[in-house]
Amino acid sequence: MSLIVNRRDLDFYLDELFQLPKLLEAERYADYDRNTITAVLDAAQALAEEKFQPVAAAADATEPAFVDGEVEVLPEALEALDAFREAGFMAAGFDSEVGGMQLPWLVTQAISGIFMCANTGVANYAFLTAANANLLQTCGSAELKEKFLGPLLEGRWFGTMCLSETQAGSSLGDIRTTAVSAGDGTYRLTGSKMWISGGDHNLSENIVHMVLARTPDAPPGVRGISLFLVPKIRVNDDGSLGDFNNVAVAGLNHKMGQRGTSNCLLNFGESGDCVGYLVGRENEGLANMFHMMNEARIGVGLGSVAAALGGYLYALDYARERAQGRRLGSKDPTTPQVKLIEHADVRRLLMTQKAFVEGGQALIFYCASLLDRQKLTSDRQEHQALAALLELLTPVAKSWPSEYCLEANKLAIQVLGGYGYTRDYPVERLYRDNRLNAIHEGAHAIHGLDILGRKVRMGDGAALRVLRGEIQPDLDRAAADERLSGLARRLEAVLEQVDQTVQVVTACPNPELAMANATLFLDGFGHVVVAWLWLKQALAAQAALDMATSDDGSRHDHDFYQGKLAGCQFFFRYELPKADLALQTVASLDDINVRVTPEQFTGQ
Amino acid sequence: MSLIVNRRDLDFYLDELFQLPKLLEAERYADYDRNTITAVLDAAQALAEEKFQPVAAAADATEPAFVDGEVEVLPEALEALDAFREAGFMAAGFDSEVGGMQLPWLVTQAISGIFMCANTGVANYAFLTAANANLLQTCGSAELKEKFLGPLLEGRWFGTMCLSETQAGSSLGDIRTTAVSAGDGTYRLTGSKMWISGGDHNLSENIVHMVLARTPDAPPGVRGISLFLVPKIRVNDDGSLGDFNNVAVAGLNHKMGQRGTSNCLLNFGESGDCVGYLVGRENEGLANMFHMMNEARIGVGLGSVAAALGGYLYALDYARERAQGRRLGSKDPTTPQVKLIEHADVRRLLMTQKAFVEGGQALIFYCASLLDRQKLTSDRQEHQALAALLELLTPVAKSWPSEYCLEANKLAIQVLGGYGYTRDYPVERLYRDNRLNAIHEGAHAIHGLDILGRKVRMGDGAALRVLRGEIQPDLDRAAADERLSGLARRLEAVLEQVDQTVQVVTACPNPELAMANATLFLDGFGHVVVAWLWLKQALAAQAALDMATSDDGSRHDHDFYQGKLAGCQFFFRYELPKADLALQTVASLDDINVRVTPEQFTGQ
Repeated sequence: MSLIVNRRDLDFYLDELFQLPKLLEAERYADYDRNTITAVLDAAQALAEEKFQPVAAAADATEPAFVDGEVEVLPEALEALDAFREAGFMAAGFDSEVGGMQLPWLVTQAISGIFMCANTGVANYAFLTAANANLLQTCGSAELKEKFLGPLLEGRWFGTMCLSETQAGSSLGDIRTTAVSAGDGTYRLTGSKMWISGGDHNLSENIVHMVLARTPDAPPGVRGISLFLVPKIRVNDDGSLGDFNNVAVAGLNHKMGQRGTSNCLLNFGESGDCVGYLVGRENEGLANMFHMMNEARIGVGLGSVAAALGGYLYALDYARERAQGRRLGSKDPTTPQVKLIEHADVRRLLMTQKAFVEGGQALIFYCASLLDRQKLTSDRQEHQALAALLELLTPVAKSWPSEYCLEANKLAIQVLGGYGYTRDYPVERLYRDNRLNAIHEGAHAIHGLDILGRKVRMGDGAALRVLRGEIQPDLDRAAADERLSGLARRLEAVLEQVDQTVQVVTACPNPELAMANATLFLDGFGHVVVAWLWLKQALAAQAALDMATSDDGSRHDHDFYQGKLAGCQFFFRYELPKADLALQTVASLDDINVRVTPEQFTGQ
Repeated sequence: MSLIVNRRDLDFYLDELFQLPKLLEAERYADYDRNTITAVLDAAQALAEEKFQPVAAAADATEPAFVDGEVEVLPEALEALDAFREAGFMAAGFDSEVGGMQLPWLVTQAISGIFMCANTGVANYAFLTAANANLLQTCGSAELKEKFLGPLLEGRWFGTMCLSETQAGSSLGDIRTTAVSAGDGTYRLTGSKMWISGGDHNLSENIVHMVLARTPDAPPGVRGISLFLVPKIRVNDDGSLGDFNNVAVAGLNHKMGQRGTSNCLLNFGESGDCVGYLVGRENEGLANMFHMMNEARIGVGLGSVAAALGGYLYALDYARERAQGRRLGSKDPTTPQVKLIEHADVRRLLMTQKAFVEGGQALIFYCASLLDRQKLTSDRQEHQALAALLELLTPVAKSWPSEYCLEANKLAIQVLGGYGYTRDYPVERLYRDNRLNAIHEGAHAIHGLDILGRKVRMGDGAALRVLRGEIQPDLDRAAADERLSGLARRLEAVLEQVDQTVQVVTACPNPELAMANATLFLDGFGHVVVAWLWLKQALAAQAALDMATSDDGSRHDHDFYQGKLAGCQFFFRYELPKADLALQTVASLDDINVRVTPEQFTGQ
């Protein structure tokens, strides 16, 4: 059994839930059919298992180090990334006209998930580069693209995103890095950037930074931020590399997890000219950056789900192999010990992981399918509706896994017991890796404010209505099947509770009180969305079971679908009630956290 | 502000909740009054802040290493432990007749908590030694005590507990280490022990292992386990050290946290005689070990609370110092950024930590006070009642913090954002440290089975009735105060729900189904007990506020007590409903985790 992907389950999302075969009928994907997609996934899995997974522990143990003025990364990471570039995966999601594989987003997410699960610390360099290239492609001038896009997509040069500064993390409006026009169309940057993943390394010939900075006369706050492309090494007009561009590593951050990825404090222009190129227009930097944010944030959610999947698959495999103890009621010490998975509580730990991991995968692949639908539609109204829905779901896709898939990683450790607490097994590393995901690309609370303060209110609740439109057919199908109708009623009730909660909050005149429990809304609303996606899985599973005659279904498929039904029941029984509680708390407009004073915490 | 202890809060537990002054009136504590206790705590805090806290990060970063046949520990750890022994803290809880400080357990727990919060990786060596000495004192022969107890209590020799083996963790009945009588009253041990904390190191002249093993004719399972004292270096009759006793380090475990403490796979008698001495009688080893387990397990809970306290105090301090963002509704980017603690969600993160940390402290100190009451009472019936109550609460004291105080550590990281994810700040280390506590000294699920399968049923629910007797006076007082009566009604209702849940489970004829959600019962019941202890804190705070006239109360005390009221309200509002859910699930006798098959998880 692969420990980085369950291909049967992946096919379930692609084919049975989110209609990949139908998507492939589009002209845009004429080069592919379902078999070639399988071949691409085979290749990704083989490469991830051969080059990434085996060096994940080493990449964690041997952090990037600052040696002779450069950040040195484990040689095996370079080997893995070389194979990745050679296979063409750097540009998996890009159009063929720029050398990409022109795959649907649904498929690129599946590929990314495989590599993230295998070794996120090393894979990050590649996905950061793709995000950087995506931003360049969307917002950059033809001249910039001509010079920089090719090497990025080939993976000869890697990319970063430089947003935060030491004094400006969640509050990006407070950045101070400046960019002064040199009068020749270029700019000179000075300032420092913090938390730059892949900010320096010896993995590529050059590094292309996308940097947020202010021009001298920019208005204060977020409206005065511009975006600049700043190479580590200057690039001559013929594409050859020139002089060092004075992007200096001022320090390496030593993290709890994701240790394979270098993370730097960078100084721009400290000891000489640091040349930058404007991307998009002045003062529109943040808006341009946010154009890319939906995809980047869904990518964070994907990474979180992938980490949890790695823990789950490992724990499941371990629980089926490791003997310990005897079943309740048969305590004869002379009988052999039974497998861990024979214990109901171990199955509870595994079912909880399954509920979060497969719920999370459905969430991410659903969002990916929305991006694909948005890309293909020529109907302006549908495009708008999908855009609104993605706006609503992006904070969920980013944040829900960072909470619940982290919990799954915690439980994977528990299945292994003491062994799980050691670095000889991957489960503790995956837990450490995953803890980052509630912090970067917008901290958990920021997304809570975003969804409850903005997203559910846009267009007088337009996005929620689009979501409801997506859910309704599944509700109707489930209501018509007595085996699932109870779940449908349950989901309907909690959807009603979401609407009521939003109404109460929207009517509250005090913004601090209204938003005080926005994070709980984010968590609770996420649970509601995932409950729907579990119902969707149950519907597909039930339909497949009903289709199979007693002879033609394979035993494996029967087990698989029964497991999906159990997962849905588990989520509704053990998890969905937590959404009720969270929504009740939000709607209560409880003021404890608004009125408690800083001094009351400890009396000092 | 100290970052390892809130002395005002500690005094609150000692004086206002658990009646230390009254305890000190006992003849046993005639050497102490409240002022000398304060002096002892001052000394502990000063030592912990001077020698333990500053080297905690280094002890984590520089794991014990196997060098030239011995495990080498960071030199600063030795320095800290030298100061600890010199101050006499090794024997803080022991009687003065054996050279101890003869302090109440309530006070020794306060002291231990301070050192654990400062640097659990180093402090562990001392507390393991005390636990080892405690076992020797209670179960060992006069001859063994004469030879080994003194050096242990002086800290010249350190001690360990050797229970697990690679094939026997939760299932101790399956251990294989054997002890064969040599005919001279001593035994020869052969076998391997896994997960031995402090199993080897260069911190003391000798190491005294307490080892569970089987004699050749022992009955199978837990009834055939005996306890042996096995020194690393043999001890001559005059107390001088003799030859190596063939206790060899076969490997070091590399853990996620608690990295300052060596953790070993030990081989006994592999290349020569390994001499052991029977402690207690043959085949009563596990029973003897379990005599000490209540205290050891409360110690685990204490360590978990201490880790969370360290995270909470650090996060609180950071949130009051670090400026980031602006308040909702005042987004003018030209105004200065406000402190993190001005954001309601940051206060929610801190209130959640406060609710868990101070609830957990109340739980641990309450259990300590029960041990003290048990030690002092001459009333056989009261002794029995207290014993039953401790049996009931020990799994809670061990397990509740390992779940919820770990969550607190997670949230402390969130307050610090990216900084919290780096090893430059203590919050991620404390989170890693705390993850162990749901695993060792009985995994979480084992305690679930213990409490729901045994403890709540003993004597037809006798222990639950004793607990209710302890709670009732607080319920009555709260019911009589209209400011708290709503909370009293709420607690009364959930106590009723506990009883009903136990009845349903006890009546269920299928043990696997009855116990399937025992862990959820453990978590939910823990929440109920902690809710009571929060109500107890609110009662004390309200009484103090009512006593203070407008002039005589200090501002600090006013804030402190208001914070306690807010903490109680927070716990009842945000946390206690989770107990309802957990108990409902337990009482539903849901069978998903019983009927799901190993194959259904992934369809393979």
